[in-house]
Amino acid sequence: MSHRSFPTITTLGSHSALQILRGAHDEDLPNLVIAPRGKDGLYRRYPFVDEVLSIERYGDFPRLEEDLSSRGAVMVPHGSFVAYLGEEVNARMRVGYYGNREVLRWEGSRDLQRRWLSAADIPQPREYTDLAAIDAWPVLVKTFGAAGGSGYFLARSSEQLAQELAARGLDQGPRRYTVQQYVLGVTLYIHYFQSVLRDRLEILSMDRRYETNVDGLGRLPQQVQAEIQPQPSYVVVGNSELVLRESMLEEAYQMGERVVAASKALVSPRGLWGPFCLETLITPDLRFHVIEISCRIVAGTNLFVAGSPYAAFFFDEPMSTGRRIAREIREAYQAGRLDEIVG
Amino acid sequence: MSHRSFPTITTLGSHSALQILRGAHDEDLPNLVIAPRGKDGLYRRYPFVDEVLSIERYGDFPRLEEDLSSRGAVMVPHGSFVAYLGEEVNARMRVGYYGNREVLRWEGSRDLQRRWLSAADIPQPREYTDLAAIDAWPVLVKTFGAAGGSGYFLARSSEQLAQELAARGLDQGPRRYTVQQYVLGVTLYIHYFQSVLRDRLEILSMDRRYETNVDGLGRLPQQVQAEIQPQPSYVVVGNSELVLRESMLEEAYQMGERVVAASKALVSPRGLWGPFCLETLITPDLRFHVIEISCRIVAGTNLFVAGSPYAAFFFDEPMSTGRRIAREIREAYQAGRLDEIVG
Amino acid sequence: MSHRSFPTITTLGSHSALQILRGAHDEDLPNLVIAPRGKDGLYRRYPFVDEVLSIERYGDFPRLEEDLSSRGAVMVPHGSFVAYLGEEVNARMRVGYYGNREVLRWEGSRDLQRRWLSAADIPQPREYTDLAAIDAWPVLVKTFGAAGGSGYFLARSSEQLAQELAARGLDQGPRRYTVQQYVLGVTLYIHYFQSVLRDRLEILSMDRRYETNVDGLGRLPQQVQAEIQPQPSYVVVGNSELVLRESMLEEAYQMGERVVAASKALVSPRGLWGPFCLETLITPDLRFHVIEISCRIVAGTNLFVAGSPYAAFFFDEPMSTGRRIAREIREAYQAGRLDEIVG
Repeated sequence: MSHRSFPTITTLGSHSALQILRGAHDEDLPNLVIAPRGKDGLYRRYPFVDEVLSIERYGDFPRLEEDLSSRGAVMVPHGSFVAYLGEEVNARMRVGYYGNREVLRWEGSRDLQRRWLSAADIPQPREYTDLAAIDAWPVLVKTFGAAGGSGYFLARSSEQLAQELAARGLDQGPRRYTVQQYVLGVTLYIHYFQSVLRDRLEILSMDRRYETNVDGLGRLPQQVQAEIQPQPSYVVVGNSELVLRESMLEEAYQMGERVVAASKALVSPRGLWGPFCLETLITPDLRFHVIEISCRIVAGTNLFVAGSPYAAFFFDEPMSTGRRIAREIREAYQAGRLDEIVG
Repeated sequence: MSHRSFPTITTLGSHSALQILRGAHDEDLPNLVIAPRGKDGLYRRYPFVDEVLSIERYGDFPRLEEDLSSRGAVMVPHGSFVAYLGEEVNARMRVGYYGNREVLRWEGSRDLQRRWLSAADIPQPREYTDLAAIDAWPVLVKTFGAAGGSGYFLARSSEQLAQELAARGLDQGPRRYTVQQYVLGVTLYIHYFQSVLRDRLEILSMDRRYETNVDGLGRLPQQVQAEIQPQPSYVVVGNSELVLRESMLEEAYQMGERVVAASKALVSPRGLWGPFCLETLITPDLRFHVIEISCRIVAGTNLFVAGSPYAAFFFDEPMSTGRRIAREIREAYQAGRLDEIVG
Repeated sequence: MSHRSFPTITTLGSHSALQILRGAHDEDLPNLVIAPRGKDGLYRRYPFVDEVLSIERYGDFPRLEEDLSSRGAVMVPHGSFVAYLGEEVNARMRVGYYGNREVLRWEGSRDLQRRWLSAADIPQPREYTDLAAIDAWPVLVKTFGAAGGSGYFLARSSEQLAQELAARGLDQGPRRYTVQQYVLGVTLYIHYFQSVLRDRLEILSMDRRYETNVDGLGRLPQQVQAEIQPQPSYVVVGNSELVLRESMLEEAYQMGERVVAASKALVSPRGLWGPFCLETLITPDLRFHVIEISCRIVAGTNLFVAGSPYAAFFFDEPMSTGRRIAREIREAYQAGRLDEIVG
């Protein structure tokens, strides 16, 4: 990869691409978005997008790599990369890639992720490997490869769990789902940024997800629910802003720092850097329960393009996670340290 | 109407007037608000309001029209115009009016609105003209002229529907309500702006409504609900911010464009311009269901006076819908094209 | 207290300290935060914090007072002051204190608070002194000294109320709780600022609390609730943004003004100044019901460090309540009027 000219912030057209591209623009870096025909139109609507590269399908991506590399592209991954490119292509990409690719394998496996979080002393809901051992209902079932909450379901009893698994063809072959204790509390997603250049962890913003239909259920009175017996689903269609009780903020920081430290011990010496997110549930005893880690920008950060109450503690200008990434890349480029954050 | 001096952004004191007036101020246009005594005080609290015109009652409005016209007022309508002035006065106003008045008739009639949205290929919940044909419960009943959700109710069964209609005196005479399929999902309101000057459709922000008591129901546990059997009501008392999953944003744009295109075919050659809103429900299959269109600024935009994550994709300064309107009017005035957007 | 040099904005490390300190920084005032070891680390993370004073425990605070006074510290109280310092220390503090300390006694007593709000003609939910007189269920029970909603519970019946009181040891001795009518509506917290320097009341922002587990209950379908019978709890762990229907905003202002006026009659001639909050419930008849008053900055204002749609009606720069306090102190200092607001 050539570092001679300013790096071109490059991403795939979905998820948080607008924020990433706008961030590059705000940091005076060229930007480029790659999208399949039919999805490319959105990015042509916005004047801050420098270039839209349309492809027939994501399978064509590898053919672009040489050209992208020669242009000094830095790929900024988001939550749709693995879904669109596949784990293989994503991991083996020859274009400059922002972030530590070795983290991908740990994030992608439920078992490795759990091991990582446990090593970092992060409290997690119980996970049941033996279905006969479930002693508290309901449980939340998450099918592997579920994107945006679409494969999640709630089970109230052994019988219902068995039924639902069978209905989805999940009752045969190797297990392709996990079964988690349902923690009764409220959700809060913490958006971290581990800066290599400034050697510090920043909390930039927080959100909660907006999930259909489960976030509409409470508007149905009990009588109606008793009649129509709605099944909750957890498909993420949006996000809304939150701030956290200040007395819990230091614990939020320390959880993030332990996750980064553990990644250096487990994953690779340089560990995790850039944006990541801990998806938490908070119970009435003021404890966090982490249900998942995402090791890249999450869609909840899209709320903060025009500013965030947490980022404002570090920066005087509106600083979304997308812009924060661009700034890190620009500072690394200018300091001749791009190799430390782009692999 | 004289176009010789800068137009005075004028509105009625309610709904989103503060935002509209502040927008005018930010775009260096004079502003003026008309309010009945008792409601005018709010506008005197804020230094950015240039002039507050107090009237005894809204019925006095027509008497002001000549003076307003001679001063180059441009009325910016909002959600309380029809409620306060009546459809007649609103439609026949001789003062300059921002927006296409011919749209009013289409927005105001449930049947015409439905025809318009259908022509634009916008998915809508089923509507039952024959009450005996209702085959899925609950249903949502909306009485005509209901403002801010105050006349909506939920019916769980034929018997309850008949009872509730009778209790409201709606069981006799011509039908003054509609009966809609209750779509189980989550609500999201999309704030569009169709710019004549820049010839483009902009999505400026999104919100969800905050409705009493229905948004408090979910905080009551099932046992308590079973005992007190609360009836949901849908009175809008506020709004909160949302962002939408980016992969659905292009469809949101295209729905807006189809609505504008259909308005040119159905309503009048120039169609719909300025702010409008599609009120959507999103189901777990990631589909939008549009329950209503509002062809003017909606109150949810009040969240974005200090900035919006979507408007930030078009503008470098905080751009509320109120300010966007003022900018369009200023640009039209400066280009000598005010007649194209003010009728 | 010396007024010779710029006052140092000083607070305890918790609740809304970051916002207060950042506000001081933005207004070019020196800032200082006092925190016990273990809680001080958070404040060292942020470059805008000028000085972090670590103490062994809050009990050590009185020993700092002389030094703080000699340095011209102005203490800015927040919701954790009484909890950390105790009512005595807080009331007798010899360091400069922003706000009227005489208000503390009125805020701290449920009876005095109720008398104050009643004198201000503020609608409040019924309070039951005679438990046998409760004629509408459920009721909300609030134990004295409960911080952040942690001692609240809901009771569905006489029997359950008696049980819960006994379980908490509240059934004996002098009554240490209040029993309130449960108002079915939606909550909205209004953040006021009474400026002495500008002699006006400002509404700066609004929020709703995010409470565990009660804000997660609605995501559990009725069938599951029937099985696990969750008890709601009201522990505040965060906040989210709201705007209010504009037609109710003048009433929100007038409630605030009546509260300030009543404080001058009841509490002391100078009454209440600075930030305060009315915690409201809104019912479908569009009426406010005030469940509590907080006479200092509330944590919901933490949402608005980067800007608020209401503060933007008064100020051109982002104006959180924390920054508003700092501006008032700076203006008072520069006008030689610090004694009017710091006691």
